[in-house]
Amino acid sequence: MQYYAQPVARLIEELHKLPGVGPKTAQRLAFHILHRPEEEVRALAEAILEARAKVHYCSVCANLTDVDPCRFCSDPERDQTVVCVVEEARDVVALEKTRQFRGLYHVLHGAISPLEGIGPEKLKIKELLARLRSGRIQEVILATNADAEGEATALYLAKILKPLGLKVTRLAYGLPVGGDLEYADEVTLARSLAGRQEIG
Amino acid sequence: MQYYAQPVARLIEELHKLPGVGPKTAQRLAFHILHRPEEEVRALAEAILEARAKVHYCSVCANLTDVDPCRFCSDPERDQTVVCVVEEARDVVALEKTRQFRGLYHVLHGAISPLEGIGPEKLKIKELLARLRSGRIQEVILATNADAEGEATALYLAKILKPLGLKVTRLAYGLPVGGDLEYADEVTLARSLAGRQEIG
Repeated sequence: MQYYAQPVARLIEELHKLPGVGPKTAQRLAFHILHRPEEEVRALAEAILEARAKVHYCSVCANLTDVDPCRFCSDPERDQTVVCVVEEARDVVALEKTRQFRGLYHVLHGAISPLEGIGPEKLKIKELLARLRSGRIQEVILATNADAEGEATALYLAKILKPLGLKVTRLAYGLPVGGDLEYADEVTLARSLAGRQEIG
Repeated sequence: MQYYAQPVARLIEELHKLPGVGPKTAQRLAFHILHRPEEEVRALAEAILEARAKVHYCSVCANLTDVDPCRFCSDPERDQTVVCVVEEARDVVALEKTRQFRGLYHVLHGAISPLEGIGPEKLKIKELLARLRSGRIQEVILATNADAEGEATALYLAKILKPLGLKVTRLAYGLPVGGDLEYADEVTLARSLAGRQEIG
């Protein structure tokens, strides 16, 4: 049965394709859009089209960018000797928000996952190796996720990067800051113990 | 600080204006859009623009429609003697999904709320009265929400509609179907008691 006018039904259907947007949310978003001023709605549609048209992968680090190379790769004030390897562009944002890292990035666009049929050849690893061969990089920080796929990817990369004579590091596992020890899972707690550091 | 390429930042900002979309969700939606095929992204943008451009209020019932009068008002198979008054267009969808109502609708586009400065003159009440004066309608079902504003609106409408010699009814209050009596709030339970019906 057709509950909506055709353009409304089509809008709901398109919104429903977005991640985390169920049928109820799609309906709510659609009705919201229908009630907003025309120029506001046009701004949304144009932002969608413009971003999709102008944003592409940086030819150096594969991060999302509208200029090439991206503003990280072309920033002379960033440390050109350290590259931090992440799975997704959103991980770059998370790391930037810490304000603690001033080196370069490399975005793999995924992680090794035999279950999903994602092997190393589907990731931006060739591009990473080409970059490392060019010479200035001395340390590679493996900042893939702390799950099975991220760990497998880090181990794989460590194995092929070590012979190149680079310093290869991995983000530390441990208790989340502010976390209660009693609520930490055993695996995290075991890693936290193994990675203990001297203080004072 | 600028964490994103400018078109990405703009897209996130526009998505963040949608209801229920916080900064994290806006970022997730933006990255999703950037990774989809161009034609899929264009379909989304076009659906937004088309719906906003083509959909307007029905001149009879004020429901959202792309034709005028809307397909409810122009459907000869619907009962032309009963009109169900609702607050929003989404309430029409909810009632249609019951498949129990075959009359006409009237969308008020809000409810009386002195706190928010919404008086009867801001709702589509003039249009409702004009419709009722035209003659064929015999019953008005007040299907506003079961909250304070919806109740105030129903009482207001009942007062001005009764003198017109129409049958005026209100949706029943009571236990939700499948609901446990012990979890019902007292007000609902009291209304449910007061509205008890003979069975068998």
